[in-house]
Amino acid sequence: MALSLAWASALLVVFLSVLIFDRMGGFQSKNQFPVDGRTVILTGGSQGMGKAVAELLAKKGANVLIVARTVGKLEAALKDISAAAIRPSSQRFHYISADLTSPAESTRIITEATKWNNNQPPEILICCAGSASPGLFIDLPTSLVKEQMETNYSSSAYIAHAFLQPWLQNPSGMKSKEAKHIVFTSSIAALLPIVGYSLYSPSKVALRALADTLSQELLLYHPLCNIRTHTIFPGTIFSPGLEVENQTKPAITKKIEESDGGQTCEEVAAISIKGLERGEELITTSGIVGVALKAGMLGTSRRNGWGVVDTVVGWIAVIVLVLVRRDLDGTVRRWGKERLEKEK
Amino acid sequence: MALSLAWASALLVVFLSVLIFDRMGGFQSKNQFPVDGRTVILTGGSQGMGKAVAELLAKKGANVLIVARTVGKLEAALKDISAAAIRPSSQRFHYISADLTSPAESTRIITEATKWNNNQPPEILICCAGSASPGLFIDLPTSLVKEQMETNYSSSAYIAHAFLQPWLQNPSGMKSKEAKHIVFTSSIAALLPIVGYSLYSPSKVALRALADTLSQELLLYHPLCNIRTHTIFPGTIFSPGLEVENQTKPAITKKIEESDGGQTCEEVAAISIKGLERGEELITTSGIVGVALKAGMLGTSRRNGWGVVDTVVGWIAVIVLVLVRRDLDGTVRRWGKERLEKEK
Repeated sequence: MALSLAWASALLVVFLSVLIFDRMGGFQSKNQFPVDGRTVILTGGSQGMGKAVAELLAKKGANVLIVARTVGKLEAALKDISAAAIRPSSQRFHYISADLTSPAESTRIITEATKWNNNQPPEILICCAGSASPGLFIDLPTSLVKEQMETNYSSSAYIAHAFLQPWLQNPSGMKSKEAKHIVFTSSIAALLPIVGYSLYSPSKVALRALADTLSQELLLYHPLCNIRTHTIFPGTIFSPGLEVENQTKPAITKKIEESDGGQTCEEVAAISIKGLERGEELITTSGIVGVALKAGMLGTSRRNGWGVVDTVVGWIAVIVLVLVRRDLDGTVRRWGKERLEKEK
Repeated sequence: MALSLAWASALLVVFLSVLIFDRMGGFQSKNQFPVDGRTVILTGGSQGMGKAVAELLAKKGANVLIVARTVGKLEAALKDISAAAIRPSSQRFHYISADLTSPAESTRIITEATKWNNNQPPEILICCAGSASPGLFIDLPTSLVKEQMETNYSSSAYIAHAFLQPWLQNPSGMKSKEAKHIVFTSSIAALLPIVGYSLYSPSKVALRALADTLSQELLLYHPLCNIRTHTIFPGTIFSPGLEVENQTKPAITKKIEESDGGQTCEEVAAISIKGLERGEELITTSGIVGVALKAGMLGTSRRNGWGVVDTVVGWIAVIVLVLVRRDLDGTVRRWGKERLEKEK
């Protein structure tokens, strides 16, 4: 008896060590997302998470090109981003003002970006552009069905499409043989449906489905060009976008989100880049909650590291997420009942 | 030793019985989707799965209204559907020709449908309209980003939005107090990303996200009106749509789909209705493969029955889907390599 207890303890210790080691990225110590001396293009780079990611990449030695609509914001952001450069004399910074919901604009962006980047297409594309328009489904105008999709999904699909063309048409003409990257920014709302995000969640799950399909499809070209896709799932970010979104957010949605403390743009940016450096395809930024929500929706997506954490948390998530849902449903039900009684 | 073996066997038998009983819907014997004497509106009802579902519902005593674009096809389909009626003298059948990608058309449909249905809005909405435009991402025109989304996602979102208005604005004015239903038709491609469906999968995951969010959000109105949402995930269906889709389908996609035998419209319709009658929210139609793929992507969605099957299969899926992905990746990689060697 004592012997088997000892054995069990030993096994537990080994298991936990492997778990922690895996989570720390111990099995993949090489940086899978080197940016020093490379050129990164960021959509939605003039504010919020996009700008924070851009600053962090500048600190790591990247040349950075940001894309957004408003020139004033782009200029201000570029000042901060270039100030973060580790080698101000050699790193280069630029912005392009564009409306990403038009596919023609993406073609213009890749042409201008290539010209600016010494006739080489930038090798890393990070899509952070997007916004949420929360509201109760029956109160939302039907125009938002398309608008949310275009702002969050189509804009990223267009620019990914535009960048893949030069990468795949002339891969041997490119100087660097390092992996190229396309990073999409989804949302925790793509892993956990929440009342109020009926038109936002669909646009964010769409991004993940695109990334997942491309992750498989781009293997077709692997002998010529190694392109990796990634999806980031941030929770609440304290950003200018959040302030806009809170203006129309239903009270019940705010109540449910109370438990999600929220993170600064810098925190989300730092966690995201760490995930990319570990080579992760699906990256959550909200600690164990994010990991658990993702683990319940892994499907055939690539597991992080050796997949030990994803698998074990996945097993637990299958059970725990039932309780999460029950709790959410209860909150919504009570809210509905109270509102009805007040109206009487 | 012999005793513990007996115990283990007994437990296994009990467990398997519960599993099978749960799968058979044993714990929920009441029909959760009664249609006899009720009115169902079906989009995409003029052919394929939509028409097969309509015929089956006619056999079960429903009044059926089908919506599609082409009048000729609608007329032909309506003949078959009304011929399936169990009480031809009292059941009623009708069609409306409309382009569902315009939100205004959905408003017209609900008005016309209500008028035709003795001034009561139909209580069951089944969205089957949609089509796949497969192709390799870099070869697809960017116009398809929007088109696939509108055909498959927006069209269903618009009509769901239009039907919720009368249901929620005047629930006490409606004769029937039975649950109302919105059924979306997603695809197995929403659970398993496959090369060639980069713009199709996003539109189909979007539908599930909308259904999942509404499943929670509509609890707000539960004291007034019980509305349930469902999502069906069919695999390959032998239908006119499949023939169109096969014309542009990449060879690698066809190769991967070889293992999915495919089903007739009637088979898919029968399995879908059975799932609805058992009260399931997420319904797969391709046997154990479908159940496993769904179990790996359950998230916080409602489990079927008591959730025993979903949970157990979910645990297994977390592991098995890694191997499925590895197998798919290997096939795609080899295909890419062979193609490259041929081109040399």
